[in-house]
Amino acid sequence: MNIDNKPAVILIAPQMGENIGAAARGMLNFGLTDLRIVNPRDGWPNPKAVDMAKGAKDVIKNAKIFTSLKDATHDITRLYATTARTRDMVKKEYDARQTAAEILKNYGKSAIMFGPERSGLNNDDITLADAVTIIPVAPIYTSLNLSQAVNIMCYEWFVAQSESAVVDADDGNQANHLATKEDLANLFEHLESELDKTDFLKIPDKRPKMVRNIRNIFSRNDMTEQEVRTLRGIIKSLTNR
Amino acid sequence: MNIDNKPAVILIAPQMGENIGAAARGMLNFGLTDLRIVNPRDGWPNPKAVDMAKGAKDVIKNAKIFTSLKDATHDITRLYATTARTRDMVKKEYDARQTAAEILKNYGKSAIMFGPERSGLNNDDITLADAVTIIPVAPIYTSLNLSQAVNIMCYEWFVAQSESAVVDADDGNQANHLATKEDLANLFEHLESELDKTDFLKIPDKRPKMVRNIRNIFSRNDMTEQEVRTLRGIIKSLTNR
Repeated sequence: MNIDNKPAVILIAPQMGENIGAAARGMLNFGLTDLRIVNPRDGWPNPKAVDMAKGAKDVIKNAKIFTSLKDATHDITRLYATTARTRDMVKKEYDARQTAAEILKNYGKSAIMFGPERSGLNNDDITLADAVTIIPVAPIYTSLNLSQAVNIMCYEWFVAQSESAVVDADDGNQANHLATKEDLANLFEHLESELDKTDFLKIPDKRPKMVRNIRNIFSRNDMTEQEVRTLRGIIKSLTNR
Repeated sequence: MNIDNKPAVILIAPQMGENIGAAARGMLNFGLTDLRIVNPRDGWPNPKAVDMAKGAKDVIKNAKIFTSLKDATHDITRLYATTARTRDMVKKEYDARQTAAEILKNYGKSAIMFGPERSGLNNDDITLADAVTIIPVAPIYTSLNLSQAVNIMCYEWFVAQSESAVVDADDGNQANHLATKEDLANLFEHLESELDKTDFLKIPDKRPKMVRNIRNIFSRNDMTEQEVRTLRGIIKSLTNR
């Protein structure tokens, strides 16, 4: 886990100084200070940004201004592009929480970038990213304010690093032996293939939901490798009777 | 799990119309619409709130205004008090994510309340809550903007209900009959008015704290309507002897 190397926040062509200031405030609330801005619409410095930053004025004062994304990311090893919707691009996609987890796994320097208020990131900027980050929103109103989007990403990073600090502390014992996703996937396939031989999942309409329900039972409780092995042994015994 | 009964957001004496508007926008981004406001500082309606709400103007238009927390929570069975720090009170504490999980477990109607920008919730308001919600922040700057705090709670609820939508539907209805906050408020008034006829609360300096302690005993344990009726019957019996 990498909890010392905090991610940078990159704002591409932000329009409103108020949003830049509110973003800086949200960053510092969650312990982040590396703010980079590419081509702010109203130039720099921006008094409205300073005003809205409240107790985070130093984040604004120390923000670095660039004229291209290439320059802004010169030292970045992992770049996440926050977008409101899936683009037609072959690119890994993570939600906000998954992105935070990915950032912690990266030993280099990560950055999360955000596009202008009106249009969001363009495809050329997204192309430079390692992955796309989508903050889940309700279909009824999908337009997140820029500073709220920054806020949520910083919050997720902060929660993730707090939790991983705890895990690191008692590493060496059970946390090391958690089942991998592959172990779990194999368990599910095993179980479902056996259930498919019975009447249990026979109603086609209900099958997807039942499968999800079953998987959820096992997905949410941090099973160890040994426990997964035990379960597979049980399935085997029952089906071989 | 309860995913149809969405939580209400209650703002106590909010000062800035801009924050009310931004809170409404954040609510709708995450599918929430039940906004209740107790004693907004600048009166109501507030044009700045409408302006900042952007695409969520209907949330502002449909907001309900109250003059007391009791009225605002008349139909609420589970109330969460968002505070920046631990208070000296015997009360369950959850972080933002745990609160979202708790809301989904409640079969009644939940609400999350937020205090004024400058001071946060006062102890009397917190006393009426079932639990305290603390949004984790970095020690370097703990002052969250009101709308950002609302935003994070709504986001956590949205993510939690998305995940639980799959689990769902295996529980009975044991929690259907939780007492409303109005039931509880009436119980408190009944009890305190009877106690005021005795020496129990007679020292004026100590009364507020004693009342809070008593209310806390009954606020944190998910009482049902029937239990509240039973308690009121007990009070009546004891005082009519």
